[in-house]
Amino acid sequence: MSEFRLDWERAGRTGTSEAVLCEPKSAAQIGAIIAHATELGQRLLLTRLGPRKFSRLPAPARDALDYDEATRTAILGGLPAARGTGRVAIVCGGTSDLAVAREAARTLAFEGERATLLADVGVAGLWRLMERLDDIRRHRVVIAVAGMEGALFSVLAGLVPCAVIAVPTSIGYGVAEGGRTALNAALASCASGLAVVNIDNGFGAAHAALRILGENPPRPA
Amino acid sequence: MSEFRLDWERAGRTGTSEAVLCEPKSAAQIGAIIAHATELGQRLLLTRLGPRKFSRLPAPARDALDYDEATRTAILGGLPAARGTGRVAIVCGGTSDLAVAREAARTLAFEGERATLLADVGVAGLWRLMERLDDIRRHRVVIAVAGMEGALFSVLAGLVPCAVIAVPTSIGYGVAEGGRTALNAALASCASGLAVVNIDNGFGAAHAALRILGENPPRPA
Amino acid sequence: MSEFRLDWERAGRTGTSEAVLCEPKSAAQIGAIIAHATELGQRLLLTRLGPRKFSRLPAPARDALDYDEATRTAILGGLPAARGTGRVAIVCGGTSDLAVAREAARTLAFEGERATLLADVGVAGLWRLMERLDDIRRHRVVIAVAGMEGALFSVLAGLVPCAVIAVPTSIGYGVAEGGRTALNAALASCASGLAVVNIDNGFGAAHAALRILGENPPRPA
Amino acid sequence: MSEFRLDWERAGRTGTSEAVLCEPKSAAQIGAIIAHATELGQRLLLTRLGPRKFSRLPAPARDALDYDEATRTAILGGLPAARGTGRVAIVCGGTSDLAVAREAARTLAFEGERATLLADVGVAGLWRLMERLDDIRRHRVVIAVAGMEGALFSVLAGLVPCAVIAVPTSIGYGVAEGGRTALNAALASCASGLAVVNIDNGFGAAHAALRILGENPPRPA
Amino acid sequence: MSEFRLDWERAGRTGTSEAVLCEPKSAAQIGAIIAHATELGQRLLLTRLGPRKFSRLPAPARDALDYDEATRTAILGGLPAARGTGRVAIVCGGTSDLAVAREAARTLAFEGERATLLADVGVAGLWRLMERLDDIRRHRVVIAVAGMEGALFSVLAGLVPCAVIAVPTSIGYGVAEGGRTALNAALASCASGLAVVNIDNGFGAAHAALRILGENPPRPA
Amino acid sequence: MSEFRLDWERAGRTGTSEAVLCEPKSAAQIGAIIAHATELGQRLLLTRLGPRKFSRLPAPARDALDYDEATRTAILGGLPAARGTGRVAIVCGGTSDLAVAREAARTLAFEGERATLLADVGVAGLWRLMERLDDIRRHRVVIAVAGMEGALFSVLAGLVPCAVIAVPTSIGYGVAEGGRTALNAALASCASGLAVVNIDNGFGAAHAALRILGENPPRPA
Amino acid sequence: MSEFRLDWERAGRTGTSEAVLCEPKSAAQIGAIIAHATELGQRLLLTRLGPRKFSRLPAPARDALDYDEATRTAILGGLPAARGTGRVAIVCGGTSDLAVAREAARTLAFEGERATLLADVGVAGLWRLMERLDDIRRHRVVIAVAGMEGALFSVLAGLVPCAVIAVPTSIGYGVAEGGRTALNAALASCASGLAVVNIDNGFGAAHAALRILGENPPRPA
Amino acid sequence: MSEFRLDWERAGRTGTSEAVLCEPKSAAQIGAIIAHATELGQRLLLTRLGPRKFSRLPAPARDALDYDEATRTAILGGLPAARGTGRVAIVCGGTSDLAVAREAARTLAFEGERATLLADVGVAGLWRLMERLDDIRRHRVVIAVAGMEGALFSVLAGLVPCAVIAVPTSIGYGVAEGGRTALNAALASCASGLAVVNIDNGFGAAHAALRILGENPPRPA
Repeated sequence: MSEFRLDWERAGRTGTSEAVLCEPKSAAQIGAIIAHATELGQRLLLTRLGPRKFSRLPAPARDALDYDEATRTAILGGLPAARGTGRVAIVCGGTSDLAVAREAARTLAFEGERATLLADVGVAGLWRLMERLDDIRRHRVVIAVAGMEGALFSVLAGLVPCAVIAVPTSIGYGVAEGGRTALNAALASCASGLAVVNIDNGFGAAHAALRILGENPPRPA
Repeated sequence: MSEFRLDWERAGRTGTSEAVLCEPKSAAQIGAIIAHATELGQRLLLTRLGPRKFSRLPAPARDALDYDEATRTAILGGLPAARGTGRVAIVCGGTSDLAVAREAARTLAFEGERATLLADVGVAGLWRLMERLDDIRRHRVVIAVAGMEGALFSVLAGLVPCAVIAVPTSIGYGVAEGGRTALNAALASCASGLAVVNIDNGFGAAHAALRILGENPPRPA
Repeated sequence: MSEFRLDWERAGRTGTSEAVLCEPKSAAQIGAIIAHATELGQRLLLTRLGPRKFSRLPAPARDALDYDEATRTAILGGLPAARGTGRVAIVCGGTSDLAVAREAARTLAFEGERATLLADVGVAGLWRLMERLDDIRRHRVVIAVAGMEGALFSVLAGLVPCAVIAVPTSIGYGVAEGGRTALNAALASCASGLAVVNIDNGFGAAHAALRILGENPPRPA
Repeated sequence: MSEFRLDWERAGRTGTSEAVLCEPKSAAQIGAIIAHATELGQRLLLTRLGPRKFSRLPAPARDALDYDEATRTAILGGLPAARGTGRVAIVCGGTSDLAVAREAARTLAFEGERATLLADVGVAGLWRLMERLDDIRRHRVVIAVAGMEGALFSVLAGLVPCAVIAVPTSIGYGVAEGGRTALNAALASCASGLAVVNIDNGFGAAHAALRILGENPPRPA
Repeated sequence: MSEFRLDWERAGRTGTSEAVLCEPKSAAQIGAIIAHATELGQRLLLTRLGPRKFSRLPAPARDALDYDEATRTAILGGLPAARGTGRVAIVCGGTSDLAVAREAARTLAFEGERATLLADVGVAGLWRLMERLDDIRRHRVVIAVAGMEGALFSVLAGLVPCAVIAVPTSIGYGVAEGGRTALNAALASCASGLAVVNIDNGFGAAHAALRILGENPPRPA
Repeated sequence: MSEFRLDWERAGRTGTSEAVLCEPKSAAQIGAIIAHATELGQRLLLTRLGPRKFSRLPAPARDALDYDEATRTAILGGLPAARGTGRVAIVCGGTSDLAVAREAARTLAFEGERATLLADVGVAGLWRLMERLDDIRRHRVVIAVAGMEGALFSVLAGLVPCAVIAVPTSIGYGVAEGGRTALNAALASCASGLAVVNIDNGFGAAHAALRILGENPPRPA
Repeated sequence: MSEFRLDWERAGRTGTSEAVLCEPKSAAQIGAIIAHATELGQRLLLTRLGPRKFSRLPAPARDALDYDEATRTAILGGLPAARGTGRVAIVCGGTSDLAVAREAARTLAFEGERATLLADVGVAGLWRLMERLDDIRRHRVVIAVAGMEGALFSVLAGLVPCAVIAVPTSIGYGVAEGGRTALNAALASCASGLAVVNIDNGFGAAHAALRILGENPPRPA
Repeated sequence: MSEFRLDWERAGRTGTSEAVLCEPKSAAQIGAIIAHATELGQRLLLTRLGPRKFSRLPAPARDALDYDEATRTAILGGLPAARGTGRVAIVCGGTSDLAVAREAARTLAFEGERATLLADVGVAGLWRLMERLDDIRRHRVVIAVAGMEGALFSVLAGLVPCAVIAVPTSIGYGVAEGGRTALNAALASCASGLAVVNIDNGFGAAHAALRILGENPPRPA
């Protein structure tokens, strides 16, 4: 019990709810956090919760969660009604980056924001991106998700005036392994004004979008 | 002449004017760009223009520029009237990071945005940051500038709900040399929703802020 | 037998007992070391002993050990009476860094020092750290344990006058993976006088604390 | 004299003439090589010959060379008549990458190949590339030169069927400094079939193009 | 279904067919792609499809594929008649690099090109390479595959006038682990005109060869 | 004026006085800081102040400083009477590391601590270290300064029971260039309980020593 | 069969027999090599042959081999009579580095050289090394094996006049993980004349020793 | 005076005389060392002594030295009569690596060993190496000096049975900059038994050769 003390006041301070990064925690620790939140009636978003660790959670914890294996996210306490819709577009090049793109979408949904997901707009076939450009420009924030060489970030930011958040992914091999190449490409982009988050950090991109939308003014916890 | 072809239509596409990164260009190339812009009556922001290269520009180019050595920026065609004020705060820990902080401020001013500069809020003396917190929270976007270990990014993002753009600087020595440590600290922050730009990229942070403010809708070139 | 020759005289020379780093050793090698120590009546601390390797130790060895899976440490010969109490505080940000924090606590206990563990004082929610500050300042040595961007090290060292030992952990992903980001943040801290040990090295931090306390003068082996 | 022994038979073996990388050699060494080649009546291409080192060459050597400061190349023995024209296009994003692009053009010219140089086709303003696409596709080999994040490589290779040789440049700062980011982007490109050479290696790209054109069959030395 | 949208028009644009990188995709995603291609009657090359993931594909997908475990490639729709033969030589030093060499051969075969495979020409025993030199020189393109220190690339490119594509492999340990040493050796080669692809990228080398052969002019999709 | 706001209260909080890292600051900025401190009657330690920058300070600032070129440190307001003597030993291998060793000694002296400097105890000639061992062991804290491979840290920490602070230096070339090799050697030492500071950070080592000595309890500013 | 072509003439050229690096080869490939060597009556040394891969070899291959799991080496054709004894000492710090030390010993034995193994001479307890010094100095070549910070290399080379070959090992965690720290320490040693081989390369150290002993003059294959 | 204490007994311990690495030392420090050695009548080898620092030495020191600018070495006390000749061959690829090759030759000469220098045997033109092979094989030790991709090391070690010491140099640009690529190539060589020293360390290679020759038994200092 004394091992954790969640930051339930965070919403009042930074506008977003508490989330739990599960990767470095044991199943026992995660189970205890869920039990504690349940007791307090708090909603909770869990990220990077792999299927093996999920299966080792206590049964009541497992039952209480809305778990999505592909994104390794789980939600306790359900989704709120949508506060906003159509303000955030999530763009990625293909099937490989979808898990991270959807982690962002789930995180936004957990905070009441419904995003548009565009999953077929890679740079190798530029016309697919061009066809969707008018659609993308209608959003206030674009979250771009790409691995390998991350050329999507520059192409996109050169074509739209919206806030663009780049999420480099660890998709790729050889020099692309681990995502550093895509990350550096986003940071070094010749298209100005790109904002970048950590590799595979769909969760962080969603939070950056929420900060931008200004939908996180101090609210009662 | 055929060597460059500036992107004057950029404003209509992404909402920000053309800028010239001077570091990799020769004085002759920069002089030709300025002459060309002058001929067309275009305003121009020049970044990373060191004092030695500035002094080697043709005299008419030098005279036409508003040059600021500390930030290594120059402006051709003067500043526009302020479109917005008090929406962007630029925060840095001390005198060492000021050059980058002011590059951001100059870039914003070039696009008509007047930023608030807070230059004494480092983490080693936390009370200085605390005193200014209410002031900082009043802004829609906070640009945080820090070198060395970049702890400022996490502390700040944990305390304010605004959009926070982290600009790591190359200030530091040993493991901090070159800015990678501050950059990685910003990307790996435990405070969620930080948006990061390249090392020493005050210019890029300003452009990210402009995209966030939505003050870059298509305008006539 | 001829494969190892433990340094039983170490206590007389540097003030701390022999310890065995188990990760690179085979179960057979560890078993032989335990048998040898048992024969000599020597106490022994084993670190980085994973549960699989522990389960492959000979049964008598397993029975003789006080094994703690979470910290991957085992103690042969029991804990001594406490020589000192309340002189070392171990501080970490949350549940993820607890294993390393407790490795430090176990190592101190093995040498007769009882440490205070404070496990809920991360930087993202700064008030949790502030509440505990007076308590922390009462100790002569503070061991700070943090992963990700390691901002805790700077914040803490800027607030307390005690000796502060930073233990960066490998907790984190993307650019934080492996712990280099937290390590570099500790080394590059703007708060002066931080002393740093290797990534995940709770054991080493405890030994550094013992050296500082001066509780390791030459004693009979 | 005994210090060097040029490989005049190289043309007969690999189809390209001897070239001298000047950066690591002293002015005295370079002067001796030029004198030796002059004596033998051999043509010579010198690369990475900075203006300071050029000015320290013996006067007769300086007079015998066709020196181009911008590309740091010098030619001894003049250019041959063009063997081929319009088969190689050299494409770069702007003024900053021109020096490397022209090193490639000079190297090709030294071997009798006249290349087309297209210098205004960066990715941040995609329409500039699109306008030139039909022109580019008419060539058998495209040498693409780009620094910073190197998105040009992927965009171009996704649009043309020709052989594409990527030359990453060291243009950029922060994470782009030194050219590794552009290099890795070229190697990790999602557009398949890109061939990559070392950072800033316009010379090597030209030689790769010559190998591809098959215009380097064994000829008399 | 809406998750992917393959680029069937690629052949018309860049001359090579669609391929699927399987490593970052789930078995479900790959199965859906195969089903979709089958429906459209499209041929498909799948790369980096490990045996475990292959075994988890739906049975009809598995049955439809010509799977080769050693190269982790699968072909849907069979091989076309050979368009070209004897124009590409694939050279590697030994048994360890064969998997990558054969991935290149399979990719070429999928596009109708039959390559010559020479698998016993390492540098440590130089005579083996020398014996084969006349044979190698008869080809227009040489794909050289090597791990460890990659000396083969320089030796080979210094001896033949053909286009040489270097494929560094991840074979090796210590400083060679992961393939960076071989990659850098290829890029830094003292033999000019080497063209390099990503580590272990036999697929990309084959596509580069096809671009060079000019056998990828626009064809009907 | 508004550019800086020194942390004069630091002594009350962490026990050590304000210091100024001069490397990233302009001469004008440093001059202003000195003027400000002079006005307030505050003592000041300036580090990493190279001779060129020192010579560009305003004459009154220069005159007020006790400048030491070898260590690039300057002291404003003189040294205090010694509070402690003979508690800290500073050990280094030879003439090359002396500048960093003396930066530590000057920093300690600025805070009233007189250290013992032992400058001839490298590892290549082990007997020199052995001769001094009894002398070294008499101190409570040992600051070890070493570059290249940093073997001194392990040898020393294996022989003495005191607190040992390792200061890796940037002395060395090839793989030792920049000091990372010595830094990593200190962190990975097989001798337990070493505390490490940033490369070339003699200042930080001195502050760590002061924290350890407990001579920095809250005092009036 | 056509997949490999061993270099049986190697002994005549470089004085050492053919060896097979098993890690990157499949069990089928290794089995074929053993069958081929058996047929030709050739002896063979196999390195980096893990127990799982060994167990998957064809039964006749397994039976023909003298396999040692701890060093992951296997010998086909038995050991020759000793040509030399007592000329090579292999020194390591403890149990963790023994596997690599013994790989060197086995490789030497395979070539007829009997080495002396000293396994308890780490730097943290320097007296253990000192006691053995006279013994070590009697050998012509010393192979030193160490991981972590590799201080053993410098200490040893500073004390003995023999040829010293450093084998860094991958033993260690945090900054020592993978062996780069020990490798760099060996290369940057302040003790001159150390010769270094790749991480964990006991095999290569043995071959270097054989070259030094001059016991590899051309012999009949 | 108390700043340094040279290790004049080194010859008696390791067989080689004291040498002074000048790069990290000030001209004043070097001058004092020379004066001290002169007083004692000791010979001295100085390495990495650049021309600017040499010119700042006190005149008597300058006059006493035999200085060679190309290798940045200086010798105090002249060369001894040759103890050995024709036992060490120094091989390098061309003019660029000569400075390092000659540093090795000067170091050997300082210890009484006359080496053979072969400076035209690069890998890009393999026949030049082949012509010299018989000559090279006559030596007991071969020092191979190469930058860029370092293919020379593997080719040479695959062809000769002698002890081969690889000296990677910092010659090269892009990925070869600084010499890490050549260093890693030497360490990862497929030709077994290569012994490697630090980048640009001709001095260290010479000392390794002396250890191998056994010409450094204890002698009177």
